[in-house]
Amino acid sequence: MKAYVMHNIGETGFVEKEPPEPGPDDAVVRPTKGLVCTSDVHTVHGAIGERDDITLGHEAVGVVEEVGSDVSVFEPGDRVAVGAITPEWGSLAAQDGHPSQSNQALGGWQFANVRDGVFAERFHVNEADANMAHIPDTVADEAAVYVADMMSTGFSAAERAAIPVGGTVAVFAQGPVGLMATKGAVLQGAGQVIAVESVERRQELAQQYGADEIVDYTETDVVEAIADLTDGEGVDAAIEALGANETFKHCVEVTKPGGVVSNVGYHGEGEYVEIPRAEWGVGMAETDIVTSLCPGGRLRLRRLLRLLERDRVDPTPMTTHEFDFEDVDEAFHLMDTKAEGIIKPLIDFS
Amino acid sequence: MKAYVMHNIGETGFVEKEPPEPGPDDAVVRPTKGLVCTSDVHTVHGAIGERDDITLGHEAVGVVEEVGSDVSVFEPGDRVAVGAITPEWGSLAAQDGHPSQSNQALGGWQFANVRDGVFAERFHVNEADANMAHIPDTVADEAAVYVADMMSTGFSAAERAAIPVGGTVAVFAQGPVGLMATKGAVLQGAGQVIAVESVERRQELAQQYGADEIVDYTETDVVEAIADLTDGEGVDAAIEALGANETFKHCVEVTKPGGVVSNVGYHGEGEYVEIPRAEWGVGMAETDIVTSLCPGGRLRLRRLLRLLERDRVDPTPMTTHEFDFEDVDEAFHLMDTKAEGIIKPLIDFS
Amino acid sequence: MKAYVMHNIGETGFVEKEPPEPGPDDAVVRPTKGLVCTSDVHTVHGAIGERDDITLGHEAVGVVEEVGSDVSVFEPGDRVAVGAITPEWGSLAAQDGHPSQSNQALGGWQFANVRDGVFAERFHVNEADANMAHIPDTVADEAAVYVADMMSTGFSAAERAAIPVGGTVAVFAQGPVGLMATKGAVLQGAGQVIAVESVERRQELAQQYGADEIVDYTETDVVEAIADLTDGEGVDAAIEALGANETFKHCVEVTKPGGVVSNVGYHGEGEYVEIPRAEWGVGMAETDIVTSLCPGGRLRLRRLLRLLERDRVDPTPMTTHEFDFEDVDEAFHLMDTKAEGIIKPLIDFS
Amino acid sequence: MKAYVMHNIGETGFVEKEPPEPGPDDAVVRPTKGLVCTSDVHTVHGAIGERDDITLGHEAVGVVEEVGSDVSVFEPGDRVAVGAITPEWGSLAAQDGHPSQSNQALGGWQFANVRDGVFAERFHVNEADANMAHIPDTVADEAAVYVADMMSTGFSAAERAAIPVGGTVAVFAQGPVGLMATKGAVLQGAGQVIAVESVERRQELAQQYGADEIVDYTETDVVEAIADLTDGEGVDAAIEALGANETFKHCVEVTKPGGVVSNVGYHGEGEYVEIPRAEWGVGMAETDIVTSLCPGGRLRLRRLLRLLERDRVDPTPMTTHEFDFEDVDEAFHLMDTKAEGIIKPLIDFS
Repeated sequence: MKAYVMHNIGETGFVEKEPPEPGPDDAVVRPTKGLVCTSDVHTVHGAIGERDDITLGHEAVGVVEEVGSDVSVFEPGDRVAVGAITPEWGSLAAQDGHPSQSNQALGGWQFANVRDGVFAERFHVNEADANMAHIPDTVADEAAVYVADMMSTGFSAAERAAIPVGGTVAVFAQGPVGLMATKGAVLQGAGQVIAVESVERRQELAQQYGADEIVDYTETDVVEAIADLTDGEGVDAAIEALGANETFKHCVEVTKPGGVVSNVGYHGEGEYVEIPRAEWGVGMAETDIVTSLCPGGRLRLRRLLRLLERDRVDPTPMTTHEFDFEDVDEAFHLMDTKAEGIIKPLIDFS
Repeated sequence: MKAYVMHNIGETGFVEKEPPEPGPDDAVVRPTKGLVCTSDVHTVHGAIGERDDITLGHEAVGVVEEVGSDVSVFEPGDRVAVGAITPEWGSLAAQDGHPSQSNQALGGWQFANVRDGVFAERFHVNEADANMAHIPDTVADEAAVYVADMMSTGFSAAERAAIPVGGTVAVFAQGPVGLMATKGAVLQGAGQVIAVESVERRQELAQQYGADEIVDYTETDVVEAIADLTDGEGVDAAIEALGANETFKHCVEVTKPGGVVSNVGYHGEGEYVEIPRAEWGVGMAETDIVTSLCPGGRLRLRRLLRLLERDRVDPTPMTTHEFDFEDVDEAFHLMDTKAEGIIKPLIDFS
Repeated sequence: MKAYVMHNIGETGFVEKEPPEPGPDDAVVRPTKGLVCTSDVHTVHGAIGERDDITLGHEAVGVVEEVGSDVSVFEPGDRVAVGAITPEWGSLAAQDGHPSQSNQALGGWQFANVRDGVFAERFHVNEADANMAHIPDTVADEAAVYVADMMSTGFSAAERAAIPVGGTVAVFAQGPVGLMATKGAVLQGAGQVIAVESVERRQELAQQYGADEIVDYTETDVVEAIADLTDGEGVDAAIEALGANETFKHCVEVTKPGGVVSNVGYHGEGEYVEIPRAEWGVGMAETDIVTSLCPGGRLRLRRLLRLLERDRVDPTPMTTHEFDFEDVDEAFHLMDTKAEGIIKPLIDFS
Repeated sequence: MKAYVMHNIGETGFVEKEPPEPGPDDAVVRPTKGLVCTSDVHTVHGAIGERDDITLGHEAVGVVEEVGSDVSVFEPGDRVAVGAITPEWGSLAAQDGHPSQSNQALGGWQFANVRDGVFAERFHVNEADANMAHIPDTVADEAAVYVADMMSTGFSAAERAAIPVGGTVAVFAQGPVGLMATKGAVLQGAGQVIAVESVERRQELAQQYGADEIVDYTETDVVEAIADLTDGEGVDAAIEALGANETFKHCVEVTKPGGVVSNVGYHGEGEYVEIPRAEWGVGMAETDIVTSLCPGGRLRLRRLLRLLERDRVDPTPMTTHEFDFEDVDEAFHLMDTKAEGIIKPLIDFS
């Protein structure tokens, strides 16, 4: 079968591979739609080290081709969503309430990390009964594919932020994860959502997803602007959806004592992420700093699909581009350069 | 009346002051026993800026001298414990579950910060019904005085650490707050408590309070040692009870994905407190960083006194020195130099 | 001044009273708009025992007339919302996170219970800085008056239900509290909200507030219907917004193991509220039963007003009738008989 | 192999069975020590319906005989503890944080319920890597066998009770689960533990495990006695460890507004478990009612074993009797009659 792989750091392309075989608990899925993630691009640039022809991609929906002998929930022909994170549910971390950290930090992230990803004619799903969900008939693949990562990750940032009903939230960066964090804040009952973003198309989408205010950091001092918008009190919660030290510091600075900084950004650089000491109340202001990695699992996927089924969220406006599978390299290139105002490129495998 | 004050940065001494008058909700207390806190010493050194003859001290028990017209729980002659932190309970932060942050970061900390402290022949207590508690007959002043700050603060560090029953905890630094955090971890049901400390007397006390293992950072690599003691897994929770960037970093490094770093140390230096990026799972390992400031309030004080009443904790071994009130300056000096193996000096006001 | 009172059980009418005087922490408010609550009607019928010319009503907004010497947040002329529940914030229960239970069960409920209510030309507010909030300019009194009780209570039912994002919820009874619980469930990110109700106008409003499905218990077996709507799994959370034993039992029966039954209904009759033993997993199915009483306080009121300010909720469609203050008796009568499809009658004090 | 079975309701005895074979994720264990549980006796009496020669018993430790091909943590010869509850960790309920409710209410309870239990020369463990733990060398089988159920269940009751440090707790019934709930309350930092019990030997053990006060319900009015012991305030938490309607009602009656009733008793009789309406604050006193079923899993077992390893708990005084495996019927008989002051009978399989 054809697979789109990372040959090694900096090099991608198609190769022929043997189709995967399912173990007793596993499934093999034929993807129909996929999405390219910025973290795929990071991977190609070497963020997680060298790889050898590993298949790329972790966001996809598709049709079940084959299931293992112990799989009971799914059968060939089923339309399914698959989590970007596929935890090992019996692991100690999963038993502790942290399935995304199965066996090691970020250990639930398997696709295109420790084994082949989803950008191939077939892909393999571990613990299939636990890590896939049926897509409701009324939900299109184009929408469902967003539950794998973008909706789960962005909403998780808002959930972990412990936003009170009517509370105030600042969401830093309105890429697809930030946009879903903005929507997630609204879904948690926030009373004021402030989106920090400079790109016009992203500002518009943020407003579409419920942001009440936009702060453009290229035009104003972010910390002052947010202080002004909150009568000098700061926000109940700040969400870091970029993964930059500067942004993280701003999050601490704009959060009130007793508030929460919820980090969902992947911090790819530097030895340290820095907490501004004084603004953090010299370590005693009860401002918590929490993090999360995309929650996976059938239960989570079903809940997210339910939101699509009942039109509570529409992620499809984030799809700015579409490519056939054979042109996936072009999608990667665009995600790398962020040219053409790209937010998310949809990959069509049909 | 005689008051022991900070004349200005670096200068302390006794002055005569008018005795305080209670407002309608307040009380005036005559202290019987007090404790000197390292943070008092920091204050004198200028940590919170210049002051003008402010009375020092925030840890004391005593006898009620006078109460305001709306005080109903206490009357003159009552033996009382008073919280080091005396929140304004109607403030927004208190309504939000963060009374120690009343009105501003650390705003519940009033004694010897925004108004006169307890090292005087009389001191004033705001919202007396809410901020004092009767001392049970069977509890001596020498023990009760530890509920004001040391027990409340140290236990709080352990409570916020969300230690599972049978879980593993590392407590960094075994000063009086660290020792009470060690005891607090045991009171939360920890299964393994690792105390990091180099001073022998403090190591002994740590073991007395339930530490299972001692790691001496002057003799071994702390991070490796804790990894060894936990089969390479790291701890469920690390408690920072020193307030040093180096220690904080170690806390992050020894905590497993999904664990908690509970900071209770006052970070007095540097622009930033640094999170080691990689060990923090690049911001996605679900390792939370939480902080707390000594909880105050009658309910809290009563609960802590109950632990003394029923011999579940004995803080008095931490009292290494005793001074009469007129010699309090000597106690300050010792707390500054940490000479003579001092841990806590008790002040006798009789 | 004129006050609408309960002379004794079963008898209401107007009397002349001395206008209230504020204590140092208090305020006196001139109401502009009020709402009649079913619990007012219960009170008149004797639900909380005999009363002697106590002023009725606990839902009102108005203008500050006078403030006590220690009030700093408000001044005469301010437009304010006042909580139906006005806790004593220094009480032990408030320190424990349960301000609505100040001093005793339901102790935060003071208006028309332990002291005069709001249906008078002036009313008194205890701890004014903590228990009132400024109404934003863009929010009309007619909307703001809903934050006192209906929004705070209904949303609280949903908050305590711990609804997961995309989760399933059944809300039993769509009176004004149930309608706000329905809206509250949507504001918590529910993926499927099932409203149980038989009255057509209330069914319509439930849908307007986001209910996905309506179950009419007069036409179908509620438990079976909800099982069908949830693929036999039961709901993540059930909200009891009526206060009837039968309804409570249904709540337990439709909730999945590990789910939550959130009771907000006032149970006015019978010696016991009954938990169906087998459906409750013989006491081991980890189905929690939680309750709440309307949260009060300036922080809460501000957060709810923020939702009005930003058009995230519009409670005014629940106002089915309007009366001048002199005709308030008619409103009480209607609320008692539930005639004319009444949901909420608005009282105009101008 | 020899297995001790329930032939049908009311009849027990030994039969010969084929030794179990492990599936790929499973293990087969040779038990060394076991404990008989009152719920085994209930099962024999028909509490969960008819069974056909099902092997009894769910509390055992032993030595691994054989493991499936995908088992990586254990190998033959390992000394292991096995949870009484062996969840399916990929199930929706486990993903939702309720592994003991896998697939259905109480679904994690498999031994001697839906498949053969542990009272045989060999027994089968599903998802072995997730459901067993190595016993530390310094922990004897006689102690380790208590982690399977008694410690996990009793402690869970205390954990779910959300006991504040220094808080007050009443534990109703001091059978082995109640005794471990008493110890669990102490391990959570309770400041006052009141044990309700009439049997002298159990009263003594309760005190040994940390109960501060004993209330004998045969000699005094329990509700009044607990009110007296708590200055009329009621307890922060009440634990029901019997499974009787009368006891459950007392739990609600003695718990303060805002407190928690934690039910761990198996309610075997009656159509309803009754909540006293008035004492429950007519459904608005914020008194939560929570339940739990014995948590299982390797993580849990390891944490409990850690408490044994470090002498923080000694469950062995609860062992009042010892029997060889061939005499297990006698142990069942004693557990049924509760004769000879029996608390727990230990079964020796050697």
